[in-house]
Amino acid sequence: MGLQVYRSDYCGDLAARDVGRKVILAGWVHRRRDHGGLIFIDLRDREGIVQVVFSPEVSAEAFKIAEAVRGEYVLRVEGEVRRRPPGTENPRLKTGEVEVYATACNILNRAKTPPFLIEDEINVDEDLRLRYRYLDLRRPEMQEAIRMRHRAAKAVRDFLDAHGFWEIETPMLTKSTPEGARDYLVPSRVNPGRFYALPQSPQLFKQILMVAGMDRYFQIVRCFRDEDLRADRQPEFTQIDIEMSFVDVDDVLSLSEALIAAVCREVAGVEVKTPFPRLTYADAMEFYGTDKPDLRYGMRLTDVSDLVAGSEFKVFAGAVAAGGCVKGIAVPGAASFSRREIDELTRYAALFGAKGLAYIQLTPEGPKSPILKFFKPGEIEALAGRLEAGTGDLLLFVADRRPVVQRSLGALRTHLAAMLGLVPAGFAFLWVVDFPLLEYDETEQRYVAVHHPFTAPREEDIPLLATDPGRVRAKAYDLVLNGVELGGGSIRIHRREVQEELFRAIDLRPEEAAEKFGFLLEAFEYGAPPHGGIAFGFDRLLMLLLGRKTIRDVIPFPKTQSAQDLMTGAPAPVTAHQLAELHIRLQLKEPAVARAQVSGPLVGSKGN
Amino acid sequence: MGLQVYRSDYCGDLAARDVGRKVILAGWVHRRRDHGGLIFIDLRDREGIVQVVFSPEVSAEAFKIAEAVRGEYVLRVEGEVRRRPPGTENPRLKTGEVEVYATACNILNRAKTPPFLIEDEINVDEDLRLRYRYLDLRRPEMQEAIRMRHRAAKAVRDFLDAHGFWEIETPMLTKSTPEGARDYLVPSRVNPGRFYALPQSPQLFKQILMVAGMDRYFQIVRCFRDEDLRADRQPEFTQIDIEMSFVDVDDVLSLSEALIAAVCREVAGVEVKTPFPRLTYADAMEFYGTDKPDLRYGMRLTDVSDLVAGSEFKVFAGAVAAGGCVKGIAVPGAASFSRREIDELTRYAALFGAKGLAYIQLTPEGPKSPILKFFKPGEIEALAGRLEAGTGDLLLFVADRRPVVQRSLGALRTHLAAMLGLVPAGFAFLWVVDFPLLEYDETEQRYVAVHHPFTAPREEDIPLLATDPGRVRAKAYDLVLNGVELGGGSIRIHRREVQEELFRAIDLRPEEAAEKFGFLLEAFEYGAPPHGGIAFGFDRLLMLLLGRKTIRDVIPFPKTQSAQDLMTGAPAPVTAHQLAELHIRLQLKEPAVARAQVSGPLVGSKGN
Repeated sequence: MGLQVYRSDYCGDLAARDVGRKVILAGWVHRRRDHGGLIFIDLRDREGIVQVVFSPEVSAEAFKIAEAVRGEYVLRVEGEVRRRPPGTENPRLKTGEVEVYATACNILNRAKTPPFLIEDEINVDEDLRLRYRYLDLRRPEMQEAIRMRHRAAKAVRDFLDAHGFWEIETPMLTKSTPEGARDYLVPSRVNPGRFYALPQSPQLFKQILMVAGMDRYFQIVRCFRDEDLRADRQPEFTQIDIEMSFVDVDDVLSLSEALIAAVCREVAGVEVKTPFPRLTYADAMEFYGTDKPDLRYGMRLTDVSDLVAGSEFKVFAGAVAAGGCVKGIAVPGAASFSRREIDELTRYAALFGAKGLAYIQLTPEGPKSPILKFFKPGEIEALAGRLEAGTGDLLLFVADRRPVVQRSLGALRTHLAAMLGLVPAGFAFLWVVDFPLLEYDETEQRYVAVHHPFTAPREEDIPLLATDPGRVRAKAYDLVLNGVELGGGSIRIHRREVQEELFRAIDLRPEEAAEKFGFLLEAFEYGAPPHGGIAFGFDRLLMLLLGRKTIRDVIPFPKTQSAQDLMTGAPAPVTAHQLAELHIRLQLKEPAVARAQVSGPLVGSKGN
Repeated sequence: MGLQVYRSDYCGDLAARDVGRKVILAGWVHRRRDHGGLIFIDLRDREGIVQVVFSPEVSAEAFKIAEAVRGEYVLRVEGEVRRRPPGTENPRLKTGEVEVYATACNILNRAKTPPFLIEDEINVDEDLRLRYRYLDLRRPEMQEAIRMRHRAAKAVRDFLDAHGFWEIETPMLTKSTPEGARDYLVPSRVNPGRFYALPQSPQLFKQILMVAGMDRYFQIVRCFRDEDLRADRQPEFTQIDIEMSFVDVDDVLSLSEALIAAVCREVAGVEVKTPFPRLTYADAMEFYGTDKPDLRYGMRLTDVSDLVAGSEFKVFAGAVAAGGCVKGIAVPGAASFSRREIDELTRYAALFGAKGLAYIQLTPEGPKSPILKFFKPGEIEALAGRLEAGTGDLLLFVADRRPVVQRSLGALRTHLAAMLGLVPAGFAFLWVVDFPLLEYDETEQRYVAVHHPFTAPREEDIPLLATDPGRVRAKAYDLVLNGVELGGGSIRIHRREVQEELFRAIDLRPEEAAEKFGFLLEAFEYGAPPHGGIAFGFDRLLMLLLGRKTIRDVIPFPKTQSAQDLMTGAPAPVTAHQLAELHIRLQLKEPAVARAQVSGPLVGSKGN
């Protein structure tokens, strides 16, 4: 084109204060309308849309060009900003008070008709959006997501920099880390038969950085897990990764709260209240039946075992006698549920192991329930009172072993809150603390670490490592937002004696430990400081703060459930020569592999 | 430990203003001296070192603990800041005016004796440093490198954010990009027989983001090239990646200058002068014999063909007559070089193809040279005049085909500047512009793109694509600092017609183009804006600004020349089960692979 200047202003920035100015704009044709001998083009750029008017009287040449223009053409427009005639202002548009009269126009590029409209709330198959991601990303709500993702990352970096943290890059081509999920592997050409692993997290490196005296580390970092993409996961995801030296649990938690508050301010314009409430893992399970409860609504799980231990209803009394418990929730306004609706709930609870679901409907006509006959006068009132329920509410009970009661009733609580619209808007942050350090793995017939095996036990529980490992509480914490786990971390073991005791508890032989974590264990011998940290899922955080339904809507180029990039076609076949250089060949029929060769998991279900 | 507070101050932050304060410090034992019944411990943390004094009179308990302390032990110390007695101040220490009298001390961790001293300028094998990187990183100069790396990244982000750029994350698990180096591949478990490639750069994605209307993109991003690690390369390296819409060459260059100036200010405390000088590729080759000249010193290559075309010295006259040229450089103060020294230079020039090296020594006694006899009176003076040489200088000439003259004399210039110590300190930035778009590949028997095949030609050269492709100049630019290529980029082709013409010129069939870059070509049909960008090598930039000898000294966890991480042991063997899940097996003996299967390079030697 040889143009000296493509643009003086963004389309979306023009306002009444610009009236009378000569401007140069560049952008995409959002809409074109011909009306009363004029052509109106809504010109769109990253900052918004402005109406450009083409009049043959202002510029016959520009008008002629505008006649040829179609949707998504790329234009350069010179013109003058004018106030719109009274009555034609568009209050839904940021620039709605003004329009630009074109004095010149160039078509910078033409465009085919896009396969879907470039506007919000389109009803299009997601695969089509991902296939044409460059068009999908032109939609205002996607532009907003990308802008806020940038703003959020900037807020994180500004905050942590101001608090003395250094962003330090850790390798992507590295060795397996002990997170427990499957690694993505990268064959080495120079080292035949050897493989790098892409990091599941920089866990070992961030601890190494503490041993190296970096004191306060962070990184917004890509992590990789080759998991089956159930739920809302991605093969690669982004983590805000933090580690600090000379700290204990409270230091990490209060720093995290201030950080999250800063991000909420930037991204959602919301002042969140700190400190966040804390629940022990035991209480979270007891009152909500989950380690990531949504605190935006009530329906706490309430233990009524003492009230029903002597009941004539043998299901209740029997469960208590067998060492289990009976718990109930009060579902507000659900007394009028039909038999069929209640059957549905029973089936739902059964998915989580509940063998039955007892219920009492507190109707205006009095309590109704198939088990009413088993209760003496006053007993129903006592149960309703314990559950803080009133007329119109539905009481649901599960009697079973405690884990079954917690799991099924917790699931019902979540299910009912969504179903009945009991979930208010807003952000309910929560710390869950004092996780168990170890859990017994039935398959492995031994204890495994719930988090990773460098998680520190609480000091007072260290003696239990040798005697009752399942009861040892960890200095581990999770941040939960609206029922979603946003992040987690722990204070780490920094003393070799404690580490060795833990390895003994999980039955990890010293040689095996050395093979897996040798360099970290060795590093700990050269003066490791007390340290701990946390990691937050950046994608999930954004999804929740922006109110999106899936993390794919806050990731510029996400992959599908089958780990494919529909735009680029990755993963793709490669040449035989490439494989030969990497010392591998394809083995498309999977042979039976001796499971004995495979070393079992060292860790449980939790990351970081 | 159950301690509530590990630290009130960093060791290195204490100063005279703190005298009288009670402080809590945590850090590593840098040195311990026993002197006059006292124990002196230099306690070190990220911010520096402070002297802690243990006196049995202040705390017998702390003194007793200090007696057990050895180097690199981790301590928590409570104490009082006192002014050092007159005469005992240490001006080499930031905290040298004060010392801390310990009132309490805890050993937080013990340490084995490190394999090397934790101090600057150690003389240790680099492999040992990499093996114990956590100890190496404790050394002040490494801490400084990591700190400045963080500060530089922050400065880049602050600058680009303030200039309307959004940092946007692009995928790591992606498809091969056309940079031309070898890809690192990642086998897909879910998609048998298919592979992801780790990005050599986000080139295609950043262009896609422009098509998506993001307008101004940047990313500080990890890139991967599986090259043989000659010179100072790393398998993974970090790039400052930038792309802008609606811009031409000058926009990218002036933004880049302001960015680099901001980083220099932050990292080196230096105000660099902008705009940077510019040289065309043709002039760079003509005057310096390289596309990355170091402008900190002179010795420009000077053409003397016209002066010697009619010379009796047939080597000169013959080269000119054959269409070649004769060029010379004046080496300051080198007139006294011995015959042997000059022979050495001749051999050096021969490495770069020069068949001979003519010389004239401008000694105080007059010019000396074996070729003196061929020159008429005044001719020597004319040559010296043209080369702006004076008494004491050595004139060196090469006569040959132009590329040989440029290459050999350019290499001599660099070689002599280093040898004679003619390179002053400082930062000499330079843009090299107007690179050729295409170069003829003798092996492939066709033209290939010098940069990548989306680089835009200069408008006035577009007609040459069909007639004389080798003469087409690209809208491509490199930033050179002190003779090192720091980065480069180009304005991209955004119109399909031009793209197709370029593909024709490099003999790339449409189907092949579609297979390799299909999604980008398709994206260009939906309204691609004019756009261009640049990428800077972040590791190299830091190395130069911090005056380090290798990029490994500014990378937290670098790999060796054989692409190994000596600390973690990556790459490492994996289990047969892991390979089976990925549908591959080892093929350790490399079979002969039919080269015919391998598609040739589409691009030449330049990135981005």
